[in-house]
Amino acid sequence: MEVRTRAPGKIILVGEHSVVHGSAAIAAAIDLYTHVLFRLPPPSENHGSVELELKDMGLVFSWPSKILEEAFHSLHTLPSTPQSCSPAHLRLITSLVEEKNIPEAKIWLSSGVCAFLYLYTSIHGYKPATVAVTSELPLGSGLGSSASFCVSLAAALLALTSEVSVDDGNSQWLTLTESNLELVNKWAFEGEKIIHGKPSGIDNTVSTFGKVIMFKSGELTQMKSTMPLRMLITNTKVARNTKALVAGVSERAVRHPSAMYIVFTAVDFISKELANVIEAPAADDISITRREEMIEELMEMNQGLLQCMGVSHASIENVLRVTAKYKLTSKLTGAGGGGCVLTFIPTLLSNNIMEKVVADLESCGFQCLKVEVGGKGLEVYFG
Amino acid sequence: MEVRTRAPGKIILVGEHSVVHGSAAIAAAIDLYTHVLFRLPPPSENHGSVELELKDMGLVFSWPSKILEEAFHSLHTLPSTPQSCSPAHLRLITSLVEEKNIPEAKIWLSSGVCAFLYLYTSIHGYKPATVAVTSELPLGSGLGSSASFCVSLAAALLALTSEVSVDDGNSQWLTLTESNLELVNKWAFEGEKIIHGKPSGIDNTVSTFGKVIMFKSGELTQMKSTMPLRMLITNTKVARNTKALVAGVSERAVRHPSAMYIVFTAVDFISKELANVIEAPAADDISITRREEMIEELMEMNQGLLQCMGVSHASIENVLRVTAKYKLTSKLTGAGGGGCVLTFIPTLLSNNIMEKVVADLESCGFQCLKVEVGGKGLEVYFG
Repeated sequence: MEVRTRAPGKIILVGEHSVVHGSAAIAAAIDLYTHVLFRLPPPSENHGSVELELKDMGLVFSWPSKILEEAFHSLHTLPSTPQSCSPAHLRLITSLVEEKNIPEAKIWLSSGVCAFLYLYTSIHGYKPATVAVTSELPLGSGLGSSASFCVSLAAALLALTSEVSVDDGNSQWLTLTESNLELVNKWAFEGEKIIHGKPSGIDNTVSTFGKVIMFKSGELTQMKSTMPLRMLITNTKVARNTKALVAGVSERAVRHPSAMYIVFTAVDFISKELANVIEAPAADDISITRREEMIEELMEMNQGLLQCMGVSHASIENVLRVTAKYKLTSKLTGAGGGGCVLTFIPTLLSNNIMEKVVADLESCGFQCLKVEVGGKGLEVYFG
Repeated sequence: MEVRTRAPGKIILVGEHSVVHGSAAIAAAIDLYTHVLFRLPPPSENHGSVELELKDMGLVFSWPSKILEEAFHSLHTLPSTPQSCSPAHLRLITSLVEEKNIPEAKIWLSSGVCAFLYLYTSIHGYKPATVAVTSELPLGSGLGSSASFCVSLAAALLALTSEVSVDDGNSQWLTLTESNLELVNKWAFEGEKIIHGKPSGIDNTVSTFGKVIMFKSGELTQMKSTMPLRMLITNTKVARNTKALVAGVSERAVRHPSAMYIVFTAVDFISKELANVIEAPAADDISITRREEMIEELMEMNQGLLQCMGVSHASIENVLRVTAKYKLTSKLTGAGGGGCVLTFIPTLLSNNIMEKVVADLESCGFQCLKVEVGGKGLEVYFG
């Protein structure tokens, strides 16, 4: 018996950093997915273990079911009631992960493996099974790879419980009901907490529900986009320290409170303007070209304000410079200081030019990903 | 009999563009000068003409005194009472300049030559003399070359009238009295109006009085800087259309009023903060290094906001990129869209590194000028 799930990554269109200081931001799903294949072995193949295969990295971790049961049987969790991993619980999990001797160069995986063990044992229990994971998302680049992992994992685990009902036998990707999605999203958030400490909840929400979401002061609102949006994502591969970048903006806000809070407010207006452009009724007089120009202008403005906050980076400026040669507009997405950069792809951009831009960026050592923005969220497939 | 004058160029430290929308901006004199040598020929050498020598360009223009007298004798002006050039008066002057067949490639000089003829005939009359001009300032790059021309010219012409009193026989550069400076400044402004149409009056004021000046809503305030300031000016040599850039910002403000007016307000706060840093009592606890870091941060913030207004340019970003390699902070100065870029030179920057930065920038085809900021204004020398 097996189930497949896939959950998308996300980008922040506008409002990163300012959102920490109360401004609105807009995030959206992208059509790059983390895929999970959850397989209960037939009795003939029963290895008696819980296995996690990280296919992209060629890593396999496994724990005998008995050991997991001994470790966790006193800690009661129910699939229907997502709850946080207590410190004692996490210590137990951590010790089980540390035994695996994850290679030093991939030690950042540890928290993801801990999240896996927590979600697995909380939702599915200790019965043997194999969970195989692959992802189209570059990891740790601000595209929500960890959230899409937690969402697709939680969904796969829940899909085989009675908590989630799907019309199986239907050989196609299916969407869950709203309440099932809510349940997945809550569990995924608990996984994200193990990986990130204090996640905003935006990444898992976008990954679960897809589309375009505005968030402000902790409130999330799903938007009704009336236009297709395409972006070129350029991964500079420059590692950055998100916490330090967020702290840097806050420190600058302490040094220059008047100027900086006004800048955050300007970003708030930009987010709201972008929302209006994206949600404008399709029947409106505004042409697609006009709306696209507005989006480009708002992205340019937001990038300037992010530079004002001090979170740009030479690699980001490099992407801006290259894409500007082709009259394309770019802005950083996420924490800045490296990471990923968005370049808006106008509807009428020729493939010819698109290829040149990509070649130019790749010659700088960057990775380019062309994405559709604001599409599907989590989907489930019973094979 | 001869008199020499020199008047400095200027840079805008912060606040360009936003100042048009009511924010404060700060301009300062730089130690690059336009020099004027005004010489009444001895009777033996009298050529009977008014001569303008533009030494840097190898151009000489001359008009017989008689012709000037015939043209202008009915138009009464007094050296003591600066007044605007009437349209009729300007038409007369223009026809006298057009006769000179200025080479097509230097046609932009015409308005400067018109300003010369207006100031000469208004202040000095029609008597033969030679005015020789050289300048250390790149022309038309936003460094106030035309204003420093008008100031040094007006001062030289006034210095030989009874309107201006200087203690001659004293072989050194002298400063005029405050009221004499006011008179020079007013005449220079009339010259600027012929060259620029609607100048703000900032360039001629900074050139006349030197130092650092804050301006907001038409009001100018001289600041008391308590720290030396050095900047590297990089002239990208990219010609830009100031009027189109100013109009572009205004149009963006019409499209995004809330966001843009807030951005202008943020710049206003940045200007005031910079003023506080520059004017902080030297005895204050804040070290020079700390103050320099503050200036760099405010420059970086202002640059981000200028990018938000859409007035940066690939050449400007290029300077930012090169100087960032050396951990130096840069921002555009003036209209943007090319033109000049300021790079802050910290007190403790080694000459070694300074030379490398300059070599790096010059290898891009840029021109570099190292300047002291906030120094002297107009000076006069009786040789």
